This record gives sequence, C-alpha cells and structure tokens, in this order.
Amino acid sequence: MALDRRTLRWNGWGSHDEAFEFGEHADAVWAWLRAELGLDAFNLRPAATLDSLALPEPTLDADARAALERIVGHQWVRGDRYERAFHARGQSYHDLLLLRAGDVATAPDLVIYPRAEQVQAVLAWADTAGVAVVPYGGGSSVVGGVSGDPASGREGLVTLDTTRMNRLLELDEASHTATFEAGIYGPELEERLGARGFTLGHYPQSFEFSTLGGWIAARGAGQQSGRYGKAEHWLVGAKLATPTGVLRTGSFPASAAGPDFNHLVAGSEGALGVITEATVKLHRAPSVHDYRGCLFPDFAHGLEAVRALVQAEVPVATVRLSDPSETSFFAEFTRARKPPSTTRRVAGKALEAMGYAAQRCVLIVGHEGERGAVEVAHARTNAIVRRNRGIPLGRGAGQSWYSDRFALPYIRDPLLDRGVAVDTLETSTAWSNIRRLHKAVCEAIASAANETLRGGERAMVMAHVSHAYLDGASLYFTIVFPQAGVGSELRQWQGIKNAACEAIIGHGGTISHHHGVGSDHRPWLAAEKGELGVRLLEAIKGELDPKGIMNPGKLV
Amino acid sequence: MALDRRTLRWNGWGSHDEAFEFGEHADAVWAWLRAELGLDAFNLRPAATLDSLALPEPTLDADARAALERIVGHQWVRGDRYERAFHARGQSYHDLLLLRAGDVATAPDLVIYPRAEQVQAVLAWADTAGVAVVPYGGGSSVVGGVSGDPASGREGLVTLDTTRMNRLLELDEASHTATFEAGIYGPELEERLGARGFTLGHYPQSFEFSTLGGWIAARGAGQQSGRYGKAEHWLVGAKLATPTGVLRTGSFPASAAGPDFNHLVAGSEGALGVITEATVKLHRAPSVHDYRGCLFPDFAHGLEAVRALVQAEVPVATVRLSDPSETSFFAEFTRARKPPSTTRRVAGKALEAMGYAAQRCVLIVGHEGERGAVEVAHARTNAIVRRNRGIPLGRGAGQSWYSDRFALPYIRDPLLDRGVAVDTLETSTAWSNIRRLHKAVCEAIASAANETLRGGERAMVMAHVSHAYLDGASLYFTIVFPQAGVGSELRQWQGIKNAACEAIIGHGGTISHHHGVGSDHRPWLAAEKGELGVRLLEAIKGELDPKGIMNPGKLV
Repeated sequence: MALDRRTLRWNGWGSHDEAFEFGEHADAVWAWLRAELGLDAFNLRPAATLDSLALPEPTLDADARAALERIVGHQWVRGDRYERAFHARGQSYHDLLLLRAGDVATAPDLVIYPRAEQVQAVLAWADTAGVAVVPYGGGSSVVGGVSGDPASGREGLVTLDTTRMNRLLELDEASHTATFEAGIYGPELEERLGARGFTLGHYPQSFEFSTLGGWIAARGAGQQSGRYGKAEHWLVGAKLATPTGVLRTGSFPASAAGPDFNHLVAGSEGALGVITEATVKLHRAPSVHDYRGCLFPDFAHGLEAVRALVQAEVPVATVRLSDPSETSFFAEFTRARKPPSTTRRVAGKALEAMGYAAQRCVLIVGHEGERGAVEVAHARTNAIVRRNRGIPLGRGAGQSWYSDRFALPYIRDPLLDRGVAVDTLETSTAWSNIRRLHKAVCEAIASAANETLRGGERAMVMAHVSHAYLDGASLYFTIVFPQAGVGSELRQWQGIKNAACEAIIGHGGTISHHHGVGSDHRPWLAAEKGELGVRLLEAIKGELDPKGIMNPGKLV
Repeated sequence: MALDRRTLRWNGWGSHDEAFEFGEHADAVWAWLRAELGLDAFNLRPAATLDSLALPEPTLDADARAALERIVGHQWVRGDRYERAFHARGQSYHDLLLLRAGDVATAPDLVIYPRAEQVQAVLAWADTAGVAVVPYGGGSSVVGGVSGDPASGREGLVTLDTTRMNRLLELDEASHTATFEAGIYGPELEERLGARGFTLGHYPQSFEFSTLGGWIAARGAGQQSGRYGKAEHWLVGAKLATPTGVLRTGSFPASAAGPDFNHLVAGSEGALGVITEATVKLHRAPSVHDYRGCLFPDFAHGLEAVRALVQAEVPVATVRLSDPSETSFFAEFTRARKPPSTTRRVAGKALEAMGYAAQRCVLIVGHEGERGAVEVAHARTNAIVRRNRGIPLGRGAGQSWYSDRFALPYIRDPLLDRGVAVDTLETSTAWSNIRRLHKAVCEAIASAANETLRGGERAMVMAHVSHAYLDGASLYFTIVFPQAGVGSELRQWQGIKNAACEAIIGHGGTISHHHGVGSDHRPWLAAEKGELGVRLLEAIKGELDPKGIMNPGKLV
C-alpha cells in the first residue's frame, strides 16, 4: 500500500511526523484561546495509550481467518492491536473523543488488504459466513462512516482496507478521463496524473489522507469544486463489488439509458458495496493558481458577491466566504500567532473606520487555468466584488489560506489535549434561503452549547460558504467549546449535534453537502428523503446486500 | 390544457396548420430525392383515416370510468375515437408506420387529464384495480415510450395525459430556479420564464410539442445543451407520484445525503411513476444568440475542433458537426430547394479545389449570452476552428439552421406519403472511441438496409455530433430509405434497428444519449446495465410499482 499505517496516528490526524505549527508565539495563541473560551486554565486530558486499550474479544475463529488468508494472502490479514485500533473509527470529534477515552468497541476482528480482483471473493465469503464488512479507504470520515457497529449482530466484523488497490489502469488523454483502482490516495493519484499533464483537481482538506473511493462513496467536494466539481460531477463510471455481484455503471459522457447508477455509487458509503474502480474526468493541469482575499462590510454583501459571481458564470475554482464570526476568529488567531506590524494595525483601524468592523467578512477567491483566462476571470471577479462593497486585499490573504489548507486538521489534537472540543458540520441550500439557514443553525448550536457550559465558559460558533452553485451554496459550521466534565463529553456533543441537525432539516438545508450520512446523520435521513425515499434505499440495499453485511448501521 | 389535441395530427407530426415548406422548387426536390434513392417513381402510400381505424374493444367497464370521473371530473375522462387514436403511439418511425397502417392495438381504453393533485388518487385506484397507466406528456417519444402494451395482461389501460398540469408554482429569482407542474409544454414554459427575464434553455427539436416532464423522464437534451445542460443536469428536484406514494427528491444545489434520486427520476420513463412537479435551474435570458457555420475538409478535423473547443472550456451553446454524408445531403437538398447563384457556385468550386470536397463537413456553432462574453467565445472558437483546418462560413449557415430547427420533423409525413422511410437513432461515447463507433454504426445500418432493398434502390445513412462534453460526444444517425413492400416494412425497420443497436452496444456506445429506452431499446438494456443493473432496476420498480401497472413494457 502507498502509506504505511504505522506512520499515521491511530487516534488523531495524519502523520506522526507532522503537527500544527503554532510558531514562536504559541503561548500567546493559547492564552488568547483560553480567554476566548472563558477558561481560567485548560483542563488537560491526555489520550489513552495503545497498550492500555481494551480491544473487544474477536468473534471470528481461526477457520475464518484461514479462509480470508486463502483469498488475500497470509500477510494481508491483520489482527494486531495497532491495525485493529487504527481501523476502529474515523476522524469525527465523536470518534476522537471515544478513541482518546480508550473506547474501541467498534474495532474489527481482522483487517484485510485485498487487491481489487480479490474483493468479490471476500464479499462472497462474508455473505455466506454472515460476517460484517466495513470498507475503509483513508478513514477520514467525520460522520461515523467507517466504525464497526457492535449492535449489528453479525458473526464477526472485518474491515476491508482498500489502499492496496492503487493502480492507474488507463489514462485516456483524448477523452480527458482516467480509470484508477479506487483505494488510491489523493497525492499518489495527482502525482500519476501530473506526470502526464493532467489533474483531477479534487483537493478536500483531507486530501493527503483520503482516497478516490472514499471521495465517491461520501460524495465529497474538493476546495476547488467550482472548477472541478464534486465527486458526483467528475465521476464518469464505476465498478461496485457487492455481495450479489459486480455493478458496473456505464462510462459515457451522457446517457438516456434509464436511471444513472453513478449517482447511486456516489453516496453508497460502503453500505451497498465496495467501489473497486472508478473512471474520472480530468482537466489539463493549470499553469496558474491565483488565490486572493477580499473584504466585505458584512455577510450579506459577501453572499451577494458570491452569488453574482456564479450566476454571471465567472469561472472560479474556489470561493470561501467566512461569516463575521469566522473572520474575527481567524483575524485574532493570526494576530496572536504573528503580532501585526504598525502599518498593518493602522490599515486595520482605517478599514474599521470605513465600516469594515465587527461584521466584516473575508472572501478567498481562487482562479485556476491558463494565464489569459485567469486574468479575465480575475478582472470580472474584482468588478463584481467592488460592486458589492468588497475591497480586494490582494494575494497575501489568498496565499496564506492556500498554503495552510491541509494543515488545519492537525490543530484539533493539541486542542483535545487541553480539553477543548472542535466539531464541524455542513449543509447546502438555495440562495434565497441561505441567510435564514445560517442564522438558524448558528443560534441552535450556540444555544445547545451554552446549556452544557459552566459559568463563564463560552462556545465559539462560526461558518463559511465554500461551494457555490448557480442555485445555492454550502454552509460549513465550526464549533469550538470547552469540553464538559469527564464522562459527559459525549452527551454534550450529542446535544449540540442534534440541535444543529434539527435546525438544518427544519430550515430547508440538506443533512450533508459533502461529509455524507454515515451513522451520525442517519436519524435525519427519513426527514430528508421521505418515507418512500428510505424504503427505496432499503430496496436497493436489499438487492445488492440482502443479508445486510455491508457497513451495518451506516446510510440505511 | 395548453394545446387542444384536436389541433394536432393524430398520426403525424405537430399541428394540422403547419407543414414543411418545400418552396417553389418542390418538384426539383422530389426529383433529386427520388434519384438519390434509386427510385423510378415514388410508391404512394396513403395513411389510414381515423374513421377506418379498428380500435380495440375497451376492457374497462362503466364502473371503472365512473371511478375515474369521480377523481378527475367527468369532462376529463375521454374515450372517443380521436383521443384514443391520438394517444395510441408516439412519434417513432415504427409508430408512424403502424398508425398509418391503421394499427392502433396500443390505444388506451380511456384517456384522463388529471390535475397534479389528482394523480396520486388515480394511481391508487389503478393499483387496486390492476389497470395499466401510461403517462403521456407531448407524446413525442421516438422509442415506443407512450404506447400501450397489449401483452401486459392488465385489467385495462388508461393513458394519463399530463398537459393540464401546467402551472408555474414558484420562480425563485435569487436562486435562479423555477418550480413547474411537469405537464407544461415547452413554449408555455419559456413564455412564463421569459416574462421574468429567465430561460431554461431546453430546446429539443420537439420543443413545441413536448413537455417538461417528458424531457426529464427521457433524460432529454436540448440543442443548446452545451450551455444549459441535459435534463439530468438542470433538474434540481422533483415530485414523482407512484402507486406506493409520493417520492420527493431534495431540491438542493448539491448534497451528500446518500444516493441522489433525481438521477432515478431522470430516466424513469413513466415506468416508475408520474413526474408531477419539477424544480429546474434557470439562466438569465441571453441578449445575444450567435450561430455560425464552419467548413472542415473531413470529419476527423471537425471532430478534433469540437473536442478542442470543449476541452479548452470555450463556452458554447450549440455544436453540431455533420459527417460528410449529412453535409452532402443538406447541401444537395438546399441546392434543389433553392438553386445557388453563380457566385455561390464559383465559391463552392473554389472550396472543392482547396480540398473541401466529398469529405467536407459542416459545423454549426452557437454562442448565447451577453455580447461581450459571446464575442470572446466566438474569437476563441474561430482560432480553434482555423487551427483544425476549418473555414468560418459566417452567420448565413448558422442562421439558416437556427430558423429551420423546429421545422425538420414536419418533413417526415410527406416522405411517408411517398413510401420513403426516415428513422433516427443516437448514442454517445468517449472522444477516443467516436470515429470507430461512427464507422461501425454507419456500416451496420447501410449493410442491414441494403439487404432489404430492391435492385437499384439505395439507402442514405448520415450522422452528426450534436452534444459535446469534456470526455466525449453524442452521435445522431439519420437513415432515409425506400420502404419495403406493403406488409414487410416493419420487418425491414426491425432489421436495420437491430443492426444499429448491436453495433452501438458492441462498439462502446450507450443505447441512447437522449431518446430513452422505451420499448424499442429494452432488448439492449441488459447489455448496457449488466445483469445486476437490471435486477437493481427491477428492485426499484418493485418498490415503487409492485404490481407493475406503470407504463408496462417500457424501460424495465
């Protein structure tokens, strides 16, 4: 496989060798955060060690292991402590809370690393044996998508790690498509394409530690989705191995041959089968990446500018508009990390005086492509920004966001060490509804969080728009709050999560724009898909996975 | 309803008041065609009259009729000769052949015109009574999509005409979306939007006589799909009435809440339910429509130019590249209709001398939008066209195609009167495969047609690309051939159709790019979707329509 699991954290983000760089003013950053959260001191909460874990007793016997070894080879069946703990959960706040508390009840009995051509045999065996199979790519799910379900009542639980399926099978240069095995990690995929002058352009925050199959299974979105599309937009065709056979979707530019099962594979979340191959749309690798910042006096003006940009069909790769709360958070965080020069302070004061004060919002706009096209798009963007009271801030803010874009997930682990929770959730809605939904979700989260806090403590609720369409946009919420007392953290999180999801469903948002359903959003799926929609999902699942062995407890 | 059925031909295209304008040189046109087909004289084949039809004996009794009248109102249940004949079939060559021969075995017992809010009750009644229901919008299906299936063994057959469901329910200007009842006809839909400065931009050749719901059910494509997308691209959300309840898909700009059922409604072909409402994406009505012609020395250069255009992301509304055969056909047809001036003849000779001769291909490129954007796109287009040995021909050719774009379907009826068959079929494939597929299908059609022709007779096989994507394009084939002897025409057609479909499936094409599956393409669906894909379709149908009353014999 491309990435040795041992180089990665089993109970945190990314590589052991990497950490968020707080810089020389780290103490000032922590002091600022402590004050913001209304804490006298951080409540240090060390994580459980690997050795201290009480892993569940495996229920699969030696015969089962031998059967799997016959299919995938002895060395690709793993039952050691590290592999089981590593594959026990994904990367949600909820997952990390439990992993750090030493709760690995969701760990598989065994982890297998099949080649693509072995997957069908694995599923056939599991179907006969009544063993649950959890497909696992990068494991970066933040909705409980890769955790075992101890309540599923199966005969045992195997995690099927897809990362040995990492070959480029075909690059069709004339058609701008490539067919990959679906377990390939982001960096390796882009490296293979880049060598031939192409890109898929799918760069989610998890890019370094997530896989092609995972992006498709969860209908993921990269930060440049404006140019390259979400997974369901760039997916051309797929091969889904299921307990009842292989489903191949047609790889056509467009078709009228009945319903399009690519949109069933996209969003299948491992609950319908294992994506073993995918054909994807490519673009010529852009020669120019141009990212800039703009400042708006308030969220309403920023939203109008973003809406005008997409509706005027200005080609943009990235638009990322922070609300006032997120704008302030990052401004203060940046100030604490790197105290501003006198010039900057003066400029800041001047902007405040001009009305870009407490309600101000930062927008990052990224253009990618050939120089000429980027320049035209940039000029059109600036005109629209100015028409909506926006001030172009130049490349500094854009480049700073661009270079930090994969680093932020590393910040959560040191926060958790200090008893500070961070959770994120997201949705999308029509332009006409976006301010109403933003307000409702922020208020619901703040109110639910406050109920769980002790006197003087504060939660920070912030949001941004990061994917904009002709007809609407996504909203991405981040919550930072002091953890409740030991043993109550899960209840605290569930209260906040419930309030947010109720507000989303109650105010016209989708339960997820690009994270997926997993186990966390399942309680709200019926409200979104309707009673008949859920029955339809069950009928589809019943046909592909009649015994319900695929990723039990997720999606449907 | 918007269009009175009595103003339309029950056994031919469009309105009684309209016909194809052959102009003052009509005799010359017919003489040219006769010579091309190798005919000494046309075999005149008059169509059966309405009065002579032997309509099948209705199997629904008075109680059934009364039950339907209670739901939709007395005046909206029709069992007269005209209504039954009108709704007996669609608009395929195969349909017209049978209608003109007086074969209306597929006619419904009754035709009902419900309002949207009555559809669910109709389906519930039909489900209980075991009566088949055929949803019918404009009836312009060319794949047998709206014919009754006498072999379905139901207790009776009702055609559910959707055209009274024609209200605009909401126009969300901020979000660029509109929600319509799905039976609205093209012109009325665009009129409602145009009054507010918007357009859907979906203009298939059938535009005047097809409905929103039909476009979605068949995954249709308008001639400006490059700008506005196919039905599955502009569909935001839908309401599908089914025998087991209403399926509402989410109307979100994008979502990760599991599989996207919009892509199941798009392509549902009346076999899963009746689309009663749809929310669609809008664009601001363009101020400029700029259509121009270009000439290439051969098909390969034309294809390279079209591929380069879409892969360079030049915004184009329409690209329509005729192969050498279609280019010659239209050149000669135009010459016969309107003999060219001396200047034009000289120019034509000069082009021939330059290598734009027997293999030459015409490309129509249309740009729509605001003037500045259209001018930029036009300049980029011309540069790419020239780089591929193309010669810009100016606006004449473009405008002539644009103004004739809804007139061509009227040409078939007078051809059929003269014993000349016209059929069309279409597919799509990857750029890397398009020349191979084009050649294989043309050869298969020509060879199958030749087997059915008498000595000296000839078939004309021609094709064009009309929808181009980053990764591939559509191919649309037209066949003009002398009909076989009376009584053998159906066998003749089936032989040609089979050969074409086998060639498409055998050479990497989809069985349909925008016509749909209907009954005509059903034999090839398993080859495209795979055995598991068909089982999945059956499972979906089983959940929504367990008794199989919806449009039996179509899709699945």
